[in-house]
Amino acid sequence: MMQMKGVLAIVTNEVLTLNNLDALFNPKSIAIIGASPDSKKIGGRPLSYLQNYGYKGDVYPINPKYDEINGLTCFHDILSVENSVDVAIIALPSSAVIENLEKCAKQGVKSVVIFSAGFGEIGQEGELEQQKIVQIAKQYGIRVLGPNCLGLFNVQLGFYGTFSTIIEDEKPLDSKIGFVSQSGAFGSHVFTLARQQNIGFSYFIATGNEADVDVADCIEYLATDPNTDVIACYIEGVKDGNKLINAFKLAKENNKPVIALKVGTTEVGMKAAMSHTGSIVGSDAVFDTVFSQSGVYRATTIDEFLDVTYVASQLPSPKGNRAAVFTISGGVGIMLADQLAERGFTLPETPDDVKEKLKAILPIAGTQNPIDTTAQISYIPTLLEDFIDAVLSSGSYDTAIVFLGFAGLKHDSIKERIETLRRMKDKFPHIPQITVTINSPQSSLAFREAGVPVIQDPTRAVIALRAMKDFGEFNSRNFEQVIPNFNADLTGLNGDLTEYTSKKFLQQFDLPITNEQLVTTEQEAIEVIKDFQYPLVLKGMSPQILHKTDKGLVSLNITSEEQAIEEFNKLKAIIEATPNATFEGILIQEMIKGDFTEMFVGSKRDPIFGQMVIVGLGGIYIEVLKDISMRKAPVSREQAKEMIEELSASQVLQAYRGKKARDIDALSKLISDFSKVIATVEEDILEADLNPVMVFDEGHGVKIADGLITLKN
Amino acid sequence: MMQMKGVLAIVTNEVLTLNNLDALFNPKSIAIIGASPDSKKIGGRPLSYLQNYGYKGDVYPINPKYDEINGLTCFHDILSVENSVDVAIIALPSSAVIENLEKCAKQGVKSVVIFSAGFGEIGQEGELEQQKIVQIAKQYGIRVLGPNCLGLFNVQLGFYGTFSTIIEDEKPLDSKIGFVSQSGAFGSHVFTLARQQNIGFSYFIATGNEADVDVADCIEYLATDPNTDVIACYIEGVKDGNKLINAFKLAKENNKPVIALKVGTTEVGMKAAMSHTGSIVGSDAVFDTVFSQSGVYRATTIDEFLDVTYVASQLPSPKGNRAAVFTISGGVGIMLADQLAERGFTLPETPDDVKEKLKAILPIAGTQNPIDTTAQISYIPTLLEDFIDAVLSSGSYDTAIVFLGFAGLKHDSIKERIETLRRMKDKFPHIPQITVTINSPQSSLAFREAGVPVIQDPTRAVIALRAMKDFGEFNSRNFEQVIPNFNADLTGLNGDLTEYTSKKFLQQFDLPITNEQLVTTEQEAIEVIKDFQYPLVLKGMSPQILHKTDKGLVSLNITSEEQAIEEFNKLKAIIEATPNATFEGILIQEMIKGDFTEMFVGSKRDPIFGQMVIVGLGGIYIEVLKDISMRKAPVSREQAKEMIEELSASQVLQAYRGKKARDIDALSKLISDFSKVIATVEEDILEADLNPVMVFDEGHGVKIADGLITLKN
Repeated sequence: MMQMKGVLAIVTNEVLTLNNLDALFNPKSIAIIGASPDSKKIGGRPLSYLQNYGYKGDVYPINPKYDEINGLTCFHDILSVENSVDVAIIALPSSAVIENLEKCAKQGVKSVVIFSAGFGEIGQEGELEQQKIVQIAKQYGIRVLGPNCLGLFNVQLGFYGTFSTIIEDEKPLDSKIGFVSQSGAFGSHVFTLARQQNIGFSYFIATGNEADVDVADCIEYLATDPNTDVIACYIEGVKDGNKLINAFKLAKENNKPVIALKVGTTEVGMKAAMSHTGSIVGSDAVFDTVFSQSGVYRATTIDEFLDVTYVASQLPSPKGNRAAVFTISGGVGIMLADQLAERGFTLPETPDDVKEKLKAILPIAGTQNPIDTTAQISYIPTLLEDFIDAVLSSGSYDTAIVFLGFAGLKHDSIKERIETLRRMKDKFPHIPQITVTINSPQSSLAFREAGVPVIQDPTRAVIALRAMKDFGEFNSRNFEQVIPNFNADLTGLNGDLTEYTSKKFLQQFDLPITNEQLVTTEQEAIEVIKDFQYPLVLKGMSPQILHKTDKGLVSLNITSEEQAIEEFNKLKAIIEATPNATFEGILIQEMIKGDFTEMFVGSKRDPIFGQMVIVGLGGIYIEVLKDISMRKAPVSREQAKEMIEELSASQVLQAYRGKKARDIDALSKLISDFSKVIATVEEDILEADLNPVMVFDEGHGVKIADGLITLKN
Repeated sequence: MMQMKGVLAIVTNEVLTLNNLDALFNPKSIAIIGASPDSKKIGGRPLSYLQNYGYKGDVYPINPKYDEINGLTCFHDILSVENSVDVAIIALPSSAVIENLEKCAKQGVKSVVIFSAGFGEIGQEGELEQQKIVQIAKQYGIRVLGPNCLGLFNVQLGFYGTFSTIIEDEKPLDSKIGFVSQSGAFGSHVFTLARQQNIGFSYFIATGNEADVDVADCIEYLATDPNTDVIACYIEGVKDGNKLINAFKLAKENNKPVIALKVGTTEVGMKAAMSHTGSIVGSDAVFDTVFSQSGVYRATTIDEFLDVTYVASQLPSPKGNRAAVFTISGGVGIMLADQLAERGFTLPETPDDVKEKLKAILPIAGTQNPIDTTAQISYIPTLLEDFIDAVLSSGSYDTAIVFLGFAGLKHDSIKERIETLRRMKDKFPHIPQITVTINSPQSSLAFREAGVPVIQDPTRAVIALRAMKDFGEFNSRNFEQVIPNFNADLTGLNGDLTEYTSKKFLQQFDLPITNEQLVTTEQEAIEVIKDFQYPLVLKGMSPQILHKTDKGLVSLNITSEEQAIEEFNKLKAIIEATPNATFEGILIQEMIKGDFTEMFVGSKRDPIFGQMVIVGLGGIYIEVLKDISMRKAPVSREQAKEMIEELSASQVLQAYRGKKARDIDALSKLISDFSKVIATVEEDILEADLNPVMVFDEGHGVKIADGLITLKN
């Protein structure tokens, strides 16, 4: 039995939580509190779906008004049900929810789906009621989906715990796609769009207000569910970042691609999301980083979300980047070549012997990849198969797109094509092939039945293929476990640290900083300068003045003791003349000469996902170019190097016209070490900017020339 | 009569060319050479379409095998037709084309459509045959469409000069969209996709090999055609850049949006395009510049191409950037907010009084823009209209998107919605509104009949709206006519110019260069140095060594005569030791101190579009960041300023944390002046790099610190 396998797989992983959710996702018995014989009512729909779409378990309608509904015994109260209940659906006004949830608890119900609105989403009053739900759930160990949710369904099992109208006309199609959405309306839209394209789902779950079960729980469940190969999720925001990351990790361990659509990418959208969910939604850039670090494909449009999910459920990842294009239109062939190349594919030339084969079949064919079969495909029935077979047999290609124009509108001829494509899929199972054609509904169904993935638009096919490439590349990588092994001591430090204290803190961990010393008196300055070589830099330190340049607190290129004394006094005077600024001292610093590139290394603590490490060009370029690379800390040196390479401007560190390359290894080490430091202190550092970090020629290391750390307290 | 109007409008513009094309686009009489009674044959299709889809003019089938076809007298030869023939269609094997074209010429036929393949597209032999076509066309003043083309049609007139199967099942729908494609298969695909969405065309033209009539001719024709409001074109490459630019200009003068899809964006794609068209396709970046400077919207996907074209044929441009969103799904509302904001729209908050109105209608509504009507829209029939009316009446919005989910699948209820949307379109004609819903074919037709623009996917609607905004903004701008008034003298110059000769050339036009002087002997150097202030720069000049730094030919920071003499001899020795390098001299140059930003100003001569001027960050950043801005030269100061502002890194020139802004005015003047110089010499300069151009603080000007010009000869 499939469900049993699921349980076994789960046991190996995390016994408690998942066994808990199994009752909700795979119930053997269902109670509907507020059940109705009217299939148009909220309490009538789930009952009608369960009865009409083949649920085999026990169903207990609960409603004091009836003794029997649709041939089933109706109980007046959940407490009257003597058998065990895996899921109770509460389809009642919000005022009746708490009372009935308590009854469920007493009955021993394992999980509850609450449709009712009027909780967290309506403001403070509702939030208080929602807290009661949370408390009962915790106290009795019941898992709760909702409130204010559309519910869920499991197509294989025939379990429909939803009042959604999206399935009222037809029984849903099944597939290996599990879909969890934080918005019922969004989920319904995607479901319907998928239905139109004959794409089904294993599970559909709308999480509503997430009083208990949240999107991460659902992903975690689907990650080990044997009926699910691909996980699609719609996200507005999460409370527990690490829980989400762990769910993604579990999916990866089980080789299941995850596709996410997260809204709130702009400030305008984030504001809208906050007003929609009533919660903090977190920085979108950080989400983006988490997705990419977790190998989650982030879709930005609904079409892309569905296309990538669908293709991932149908095809393996390509083993490389070499793409072949078969097209009935030279123009679309060029477009496909462009779009594949833009997305990291190569289009290797057709091998000469293959070209000859193709020419022998059709002299007017364009035999160079992208391969133009011309419209002759309609007149020579074997042409398509002969072409694909010859080309893919060459071993020169990892993937293919087959563009058939509007052939999908011709029902008779498309059947033959579909058979060809099915055979080619079977013959080359490791070469993912996507067909592109405008389809009629009948043709679309025929493609589904043959298991041949089809997309209506060429660009959308390329995007999906690129996603498959990403999945493949991510899965082939081994991520070094990075364990921060520092023992950071922040004793005595608080608030905004000056450059001096910031760098002193970093020096504890052997991070390379400029040669420098803090002095508070002129006499001390004269003594200290003796140990330095000219030229020098003098900087005025005050915890209240962090942007030193703006206040004229940096003196460069000091070449004599006399000049140094003058500048000492000038800088000191500036600080003393600044209201509320305390004088920490004057920092005497070597002035770094010669050739180097200025980089930025920094960190930011995200309230949801924790410490993120950031790399970019130094100086003002970090702000001007917005060309940054970010990771959740800590990162290994390897990952740090990737961060550097990811920058659009990474070439500034490369060898260039006789100039030597910069010391990228030393920079990678610095980034990794720094990331371990911030991961160690996690909560305590809000933000750190090392800017600039001077990167010298290969073998000559790096130096933090300036730095600022902001502590939490 | 509509056609007459067209002719009148044309007469005002360019009498000869367009009157010439009018016979091809609006023929009063048509001969089909190679006509067949079999409607499945290439010579049978046009006849069948003309007869079945209501062409009212004269039709002359030509075929020696028949005396009569489908009730029409069949002539054995075009010369037997005594009446005037506007268009002759040649549907014969390639071998018979020239002979029949000559006969057409003798008969006095005004224009010819050649379906036959086997010309330029098959290589040199075919190209020779094609040249014969060109020659006959020129000699007799006949306009020729093709060869190797699918032909054209004019839906209003019922003229079908095509053998395409795309119209065999149904008569095409009409609209105000004129569509010209350099690829028949691509055109057919787009036509069919449009048909599926109930989108029609005024004209469909496939230009094939473009022996005579090319894509620019067609755009020019459509630009003044009274049945066409919007022009869509698919482009692989053009031979005459200025002709294309002039066609775009004419479209703009007639307020007709032009939407282009051009393939060959990558090297891979360009290679494919060259092998497809057999011609030089030109730099894609230059095409991009030409499109944007001409106000042409460049689509990158087929969906986008069709969506933007369709919406432009239905709606005016928004008068501003303020967008309202109405949505039945909070989640999609957030997504729309994100995507609108990413594309330059604002989402102003709903005015308080409007919010109150909405709350009164539906207390649970999300009244903040994006406005969430919730699913209640299905239960309260007046809700949608009341909401839209209240919000748009406020005067706070310039455009709106209405997201209805999958409402378009419910045929009964959608009719009511469509009526609402039609009323809102009529009531707010200057506020373009796009509806988004998944549609059934019937609903799609109902939207078409009501004139309410509808798109299936929210992102696609946003993209279309953004295009409309672009059209509006472009049309509201007045472009200063820039006339290069320089008299450039390149006498005595050839090949690669050194920095010295390059800058001398530029100095003629008062472009600001560094203070510098060329010397050839040590003695001369000593004399010249007296007029300079230290520190100095010395640079070795040789026309054979253009990358001076690579060869050690730049000595910086020279502070004494002694040092200067030493460097003079060192640099001279390097040049003398370099094989094949001639010694032009040593350039003595002021060393620019102080604070400045290094920029790049350059030019490149495109073989198709001519001189382009380019701006970017200076030094190695131009290559590293690939952040450039390009225009066809010449540009005004105003346009030059736009180029600067367009750079992602333009902020480096702005005031920043106490630093002053750089002299953007002086830089703009330099760019504009430089662009006039290169526009003047047009053919003679292949490439020029002014790098770096030092930009000082506001009011302190700019200086060209280094420069290299490559001449054609």
